[in-house]
Amino acid sequence: MKVCKFGGTSVASSDQIKKVAQIVKTDPSRKIIVVSAPGKRFGSDEKVTDLLIQLAEKALRGEDTEIEFKEVVARYQQIAAGLGLSMEIVSVIENDLHGRLANDVNDANLFMDCLKASGEDNNAKLIAAYFTHIGMDAHYMCPKEAGLLVNERPERVRALPEGDDQLAQLRDKPGIIVFPGFFGYTTDGTLRTFNRGGSDITGSLLAAATEAELYENFTDVDSVFAANPNVVDNPVGIDKMTYREMRELAYAGFSVFHDEALMPAFRRSIPVCIKNTNNPEAPGTLIVNERNYFAQPVIGIAADSGFSTLFVDKYLMNQEIGFGRKLLQILEEEEIPFEHTPSGIDNLSVIIRSKFLNADKEARIVRRAKEELNADHVHMHSNYSMIVLVGEGMRHSTGLAARAASAIARTGASIQMINQGSSEVSLVFGVHKKDETKILKELYAEFFLKSAVLSN
Amino acid sequence: MKVCKFGGTSVASSDQIKKVAQIVKTDPSRKIIVVSAPGKRFGSDEKVTDLLIQLAEKALRGEDTEIEFKEVVARYQQIAAGLGLSMEIVSVIENDLHGRLANDVNDANLFMDCLKASGEDNNAKLIAAYFTHIGMDAHYMCPKEAGLLVNERPERVRALPEGDDQLAQLRDKPGIIVFPGFFGYTTDGTLRTFNRGGSDITGSLLAAATEAELYENFTDVDSVFAANPNVVDNPVGIDKMTYREMRELAYAGFSVFHDEALMPAFRRSIPVCIKNTNNPEAPGTLIVNERNYFAQPVIGIAADSGFSTLFVDKYLMNQEIGFGRKLLQILEEEEIPFEHTPSGIDNLSVIIRSKFLNADKEARIVRRAKEELNADHVHMHSNYSMIVLVGEGMRHSTGLAARAASAIARTGASIQMINQGSSEVSLVFGVHKKDETKILKELYAEFFLKSAVLSN
Repeated sequence: MKVCKFGGTSVASSDQIKKVAQIVKTDPSRKIIVVSAPGKRFGSDEKVTDLLIQLAEKALRGEDTEIEFKEVVARYQQIAAGLGLSMEIVSVIENDLHGRLANDVNDANLFMDCLKASGEDNNAKLIAAYFTHIGMDAHYMCPKEAGLLVNERPERVRALPEGDDQLAQLRDKPGIIVFPGFFGYTTDGTLRTFNRGGSDITGSLLAAATEAELYENFTDVDSVFAANPNVVDNPVGIDKMTYREMRELAYAGFSVFHDEALMPAFRRSIPVCIKNTNNPEAPGTLIVNERNYFAQPVIGIAADSGFSTLFVDKYLMNQEIGFGRKLLQILEEEEIPFEHTPSGIDNLSVIIRSKFLNADKEARIVRRAKEELNADHVHMHSNYSMIVLVGEGMRHSTGLAARAASAIARTGASIQMINQGSSEVSLVFGVHKKDETKILKELYAEFFLKSAVLSN
Repeated sequence: MKVCKFGGTSVASSDQIKKVAQIVKTDPSRKIIVVSAPGKRFGSDEKVTDLLIQLAEKALRGEDTEIEFKEVVARYQQIAAGLGLSMEIVSVIENDLHGRLANDVNDANLFMDCLKASGEDNNAKLIAAYFTHIGMDAHYMCPKEAGLLVNERPERVRALPEGDDQLAQLRDKPGIIVFPGFFGYTTDGTLRTFNRGGSDITGSLLAAATEAELYENFTDVDSVFAANPNVVDNPVGIDKMTYREMRELAYAGFSVFHDEALMPAFRRSIPVCIKNTNNPEAPGTLIVNERNYFAQPVIGIAADSGFSTLFVDKYLMNQEIGFGRKLLQILEEEEIPFEHTPSGIDNLSVIIRSKFLNADKEARIVRRAKEELNADHVHMHSNYSMIVLVGEGMRHSTGLAARAASAIARTGASIQMINQGSSEVSLVFGVHKKDETKILKELYAEFFLKSAVLSN
């Protein structure tokens, strides 16, 4: 049994939804179908979720919402018409939206959540109606009825494991289940949307709870690429990678999955396949627990900018037990997560994502480090990029760091930081942002173009 | 005005002390002469300090001490005879030792300190007597009279800055001052020995307090070598390096200076010169604040074994603010200092000197990390070596990491850890201990033999 999730572009129009139906029909083991809200049909199009947010914001301000309301309904209407459905389903959606707009506006967060979630919820109803219309045994499933429980912390909504037993029963329900992504319910029945990972999380949760043989995540690319196609020309696709590789790539700019989305599938070792709704015959990228890595020590190269570094220097620092801990404590008190902590003998740097900093925080951290740690020098620099080479077994591959560092040297750029030694699957280079693109191109050439030549 | 310190081998015999006198006479600016206790005259010889420790231990156990007492006195007697001094100075030393042995044995630490310090103290008296004997205007100076104040923490004896003003007056005293290294006095007049750095610290302190133009540290090598001469054949000597380079080299196995010893000189930017008593014409190694590093980005390569690594892995770790801090807190509570903390996305390693660990501590740390941090995997491995490339400006030198990593790759060894990015002056490779020697040889060849060829 497979769980399939179709993202926004895969369910943005009637034509796309027809492809979805075809994909589901082709493989009878595709049983649980998680759907997003209709996404963009073309570059300048608006996602239904964005329309819903505008609608909710107007309603919260007490303004007239007729235009936005009609716009949302029109999208579903157009899809229903294209699918040859009667307008009955559009009435259902319209009534549903009226009901949501009648909710109490005094709790703005709950009101917003409830409207946003309607994008997925109504699309699931519509797609279930279409599946039935073309003769498939399909049923819409409400997450509340299914038991998709979430916690009570609106700032960080996460699924509760208590829901798993009930969700597991979806396996035994007859027919195809069409399940809206993006939201669940607290134990007291309040609707909450996931703030991170959206429908991907729903699919991952259901695949884990039902112990699916595969979680298929349908999107609009044939596979995950070994490097950013906006930087590298025609990068190769990745056939198979491990969860760890996916995590490391996602961390530094690979946007296929939000990193939390994979967690439930990872915990139960459910394989995940990323496939293209527009080209379902392509094998896609399979994400698994283990792979044979001898053939290819580097599977992908990610790059991300926007890093700052906090440098602290104090003579004989390394004899002071607790120095590093105190520095991290200051960052913790300022609510700043950190990425890496390269260290010398008398100095320690902390690599931070610049988005967590502002001028006030920077000044306060520098002052506190000087005063509380009695440091000799403290300063903060920005405009760094991290380039991450990812691949299982990388650490055991002799000469890999040498190849990477030599490729960087060929670009004339200097390496500001190297971090290797904890992760078995990544090697991180910190460089100046201005050098990021040329280094990424050169590393790609080193690890993907050369080996292609060698294997021919 | 210069402060000169002569180490144990430089003052081990009458012949050596004659060389010292010659060195002091050659340069009239050599004013403050700090001396160690007589060291080894040949490989299997015993240092006077070790004889004194045996003497003190026997006395503390209430055993007969005559043999050890005589052995110590005999060493001074032999030196005095060799220098043509009357036996008066030997009586002074004998009486001094009798006095120290009559101290209260109930405070074993104080008793031991007082006897150990006699090695330097009596040697200073003897050398001052010899200088006078050959017509030099020289005077023994007692650290108590000079104002060398130390703190009250016997587990970590350090000089107090309160003593500096009085020590500075040594500059204006007439003649040559012969000053015993290794000990000072607390404000209530109790003698305390430095537990780290010995006479080197005394010299460094006096050079700083008197604002000497140079602190000359005489030992038995022509210079500091670029790599361990026990591993690399005939390594080149280092002409000039910075304090930071010295610190980084000292950290990983270079034993010229204990790292604390340089601190006072460093704080006041006093240049330090390491010279050879047996070959005073050799220029030695000068340690300064800044050097022009363009000619030579790598100045030395150090290697040290005995490192362990604690690995902790938890899915989504990097989203948990405070995770790293909590791990370091556990180590702090176990009183374990750490060296480096390489990190991946979902994992963090801590490099620790194995000497701070034992089976109990290891098991407790692993258990606590699992339980308190709810980590997925925690394990501890040992038998790592750290190889440190040291050189100012290294970070700005394009291709240096590539050259180093390529040299390591040529040995067939895999790199377990790379740490670069905080220190401007070092690049650290963690490797398996079994690979340490071959890597050190290959790195030396890369950075010292190749460039020699290039410059010819």
